Amino acid sequence: MDNTLDRDQLYDETLGDLLELLEDKQYFRARDLLLKFNPADIADLLEDISDDAGLRMTVVLFRLLPKDVSVDVFAELSPEDQMDIVSEVTEKETSFIVNELDFDDKIDILEEMPANLVTRILEKTPASERKQINTFLNYPDNTAGSLMTPEYVSVKKDWTVKESLEHIRNFGTDAETIYTCYVRDGSWRLTGVVSLSTIVLSDEDTKILDIMHTDVVSENVDADQEEVSDDFKKYGYIAMPVVDKDDRLVGIITVDDILDVMEDEATEDIERMNGVIDFEDAKKGYMDLTVWQHAKNRLPWLLILSVVYILTGIIINHNDNMLSSAIQLVTYIPLLMGTGGNCGSQAASLVIRGLATDEVETEDWTKVLWKELRVGLLLGVILSVVNFARVFLLDRESMTMALTVCGAMLLITVIAKVIGSMTPLIVKKVRVDPALVANPAITSISDAAALLVYFALAAAVLQM
Amino acid sequence: MDNTLDRDQLYDETLGDLLELLEDKQYFRARDLLLKFNPADIADLLEDISDDAGLRMTVVLFRLLPKDVSVDVFAELSPEDQMDIVSEVTEKETSFIVNELDFDDKIDILEEMPANLVTRILEKTPASERKQINTFLNYPDNTAGSLMTPEYVSVKKDWTVKESLEHIRNFGTDAETIYTCYVRDGSWRLTGVVSLSTIVLSDEDTKILDIMHTDVVSENVDADQEEVSDDFKKYGYIAMPVVDKDDRLVGIITVDDILDVMEDEATEDIERMNGVIDFEDAKKGYMDLTVWQHAKNRLPWLLILSVVYILTGIIINHNDNMLSSAIQLVTYIPLLMGTGGNCGSQAASLVIRGLATDEVETEDWTKVLWKELRVGLLLGVILSVVNFARVFLLDRESMTMALTVCGAMLLITVIAKVIGSMTPLIVKKVRVDPALVANPAITSISDAAALLVYFALAAAVLQM
Repeated sequence: MDNTLDRDQLYDETLGDLLELLEDKQYFRARDLLLKFNPADIADLLEDISDDAGLRMTVVLFRLLPKDVSVDVFAELSPEDQMDIVSEVTEKETSFIVNELDFDDKIDILEEMPANLVTRILEKTPASERKQINTFLNYPDNTAGSLMTPEYVSVKKDWTVKESLEHIRNFGTDAETIYTCYVRDGSWRLTGVVSLSTIVLSDEDTKILDIMHTDVVSENVDADQEEVSDDFKKYGYIAMPVVDKDDRLVGIITVDDILDVMEDEATEDIERMNGVIDFEDAKKGYMDLTVWQHAKNRLPWLLILSVVYILTGIIINHNDNMLSSAIQLVTYIPLLMGTGGNCGSQAASLVIRGLATDEVETEDWTKVLWKELRVGLLLGVILSVVNFARVFLLDRESMTMALTVCGAMLLITVIAKVIGSMTPLIVKKVRVDPALVANPAITSISDAAALLVYFALAAAVLQM
Repeated sequence: MDNTLDRDQLYDETLGDLLELLEDKQYFRARDLLLKFNPADIADLLEDISDDAGLRMTVVLFRLLPKDVSVDVFAELSPEDQMDIVSEVTEKETSFIVNELDFDDKIDILEEMPANLVTRILEKTPASERKQINTFLNYPDNTAGSLMTPEYVSVKKDWTVKESLEHIRNFGTDAETIYTCYVRDGSWRLTGVVSLSTIVLSDEDTKILDIMHTDVVSENVDADQEEVSDDFKKYGYIAMPVVDKDDRLVGIITVDDILDVMEDEATEDIERMNGVIDFEDAKKGYMDLTVWQHAKNRLPWLLILSVVYILTGIIINHNDNMLSSAIQLVTYIPLLMGTGGNCGSQAASLVIRGLATDEVETEDWTKVLWKELRVGLLLGVILSVVNFARVFLLDRESMTMALTVCGAMLLITVIAKVIGSMTPLIVKKVRVDPALVANPAITSISDAAALLVYFALAAAVLQM
């Protein structure tokens, strides 16, 4: 009995039942069915109901949820669905939900909302919190500041375990996590860290001073989210403190938000490697971007390529006499260009990923070059032999023609591996994201190189 | 003052100082300097020392570390460096380290070790744990079973908060996390879950029964690690219980191990999308794979392409009369093929990533198709205009030639967007990983389509 399949099956059956109940206008029974699930699943079900039965049905069900559940469900919805719901419920309901959200979720949703609605919601917020919200709204996207929450637990170093537990019990309910407690001095400088597990596992009369760690790893509020997630991976913590430029504790980042960061960063790398640049709406998915936004993200590389391919045009024009008199040479242009492009992007993607995961460093370039030279030679020999069979035996071309194609294949494989592996390292050295120059650039450079090698070899071997 | 830069700078300075101390044979002073850092940083420093001053220096320093620190440092090293150290220290030292490791780290290192060494280490392990280790060693790679640890805390539902805290204090030190406590019945069936924060924040006399959640999300021991990491993302938990086919609790998975899984899964997707298949050693990085292993992972797609490009050869051969009499047609083959390939891989990468993050589903294919048709048309028009200028004004070709190239450009852009976006959806529908058929396949299909369109249009327009 497969647990996961069970859960998927249960989900599909429930969705079917819900849609039937809604069609029969049995809204309360539908709500009771929903309430058997946890907030993340309810959010998924509501999103699917919106797709299948329309937004209005989702809004009806959402409004029937108990208030505390509705806040948790709202936090689990995608930004687009959150905005859809906000547009349908009253301002009072919106205000209630937004003010009940965890602080970091609150900031995220306020960033998505129209400015006039934000102003009206903030009017109902206490002045002290309003000031804090405005500060948080100003941290640039993708920095530690934009990920953090001020809802953490801090203790003092001369407290005992018993006093600390009491403090946590009284003030911990509002915190994002109580598992890591930060020890600060009078001017909010971070002086240590102690985990709840250490506190719980220690004797009641032990002082925090004696069980806290002083080698605290913290993030600067301006640090890039990629650095932050690297540190989470490296140290294995479930929360990390964030400090301002004067080393004062301003918030914490919890590991659940880092899972999303890692997914976003991987998506960004994959898109960039394939010639798609996120100019805006980096967090919006494929479905949520408009046709214009998609076109805008994809146009730059296509235009650059149109210009770069003027070079291949020149190479071909330069050799058009040879091509006219030996038109069968053209037959193998796609094969050689395609193989060159692929060899290049294989090597490039491996090196770019190695750089992203800190496994490869720019200083390693001689090791990478030596490895790729040998890999390229090995693959080139195999591909040459296979294609010799094709050209000579299958296409029944002359021996010189077959040797030309295979010689070019061998050289192109090695050259493409070198171009593909070295370009990311050079680009990284000049402090540009290597993913930005991946496939389109590597492919077009490899294409031009492939043509040059092929025609030079053909001219020499065919003696034209 | 940038916190992160400071830390990097401190690291580099420390590494320099360590290398100097080692050169002067000041081993104890080097050790004391090392001990100012936390285990993750010490592991990094030791790895860099091994690169710069040789493995022997790393082993010397490692042996000088206090025993408890050496175990933590060992757990942070890469599998390769762990094996290097194991090969240099005595079997007694190895045995000590391995037996002190957390259970899941122990399994990881035993999987890497030579079989005879494993046998000798297991001889010194108590029989009950030996049996458990052997069971864990048998869970297939990349399943929930291979990620889990049996070191968790379980409580009973009729216990009070006070009793539970006492139990956690007594038995929690060996657990991977005490933040999530699992409630089980007499036959180890999972009946509920309660977080340490709920326990700590509740009154001492409250019964677990009254504060536990019964809608526990659990993973089957055979579940793929990708499903597990999706659930962590969805539910935001810091630990997840693992059950066997009879719903009995067999272990837990903690979020820190999921960060590594997410990185590995993203790497696998990126590699597959670029025509690199991980046949083996999926967890080994670029640098650790041998030339043979690299070649083995890259060869299949290159060979398949050699075969697929027979098709483009046939298309060209079929049109060689036309090409001979209008050799300038050849000039634009690389441009059109390159643009087609890129348009296709842009669309494919976006759809594949959308499928991986569950944002796009196969049922959405009409929406995707409609979007790509419009994006393709928009991009096609822009690229046609730009390239018309190039062909007509820069290359000074005839108006018919310019129109042929631009008409082909428009059609190819649209067709490539459709091929690139639909292929992953079709492949996913037949339950194959869409990443496996990404760039190489999309590029070669787009190439062939580009040639067909171009020649058909040329034949029609140039009336040959």
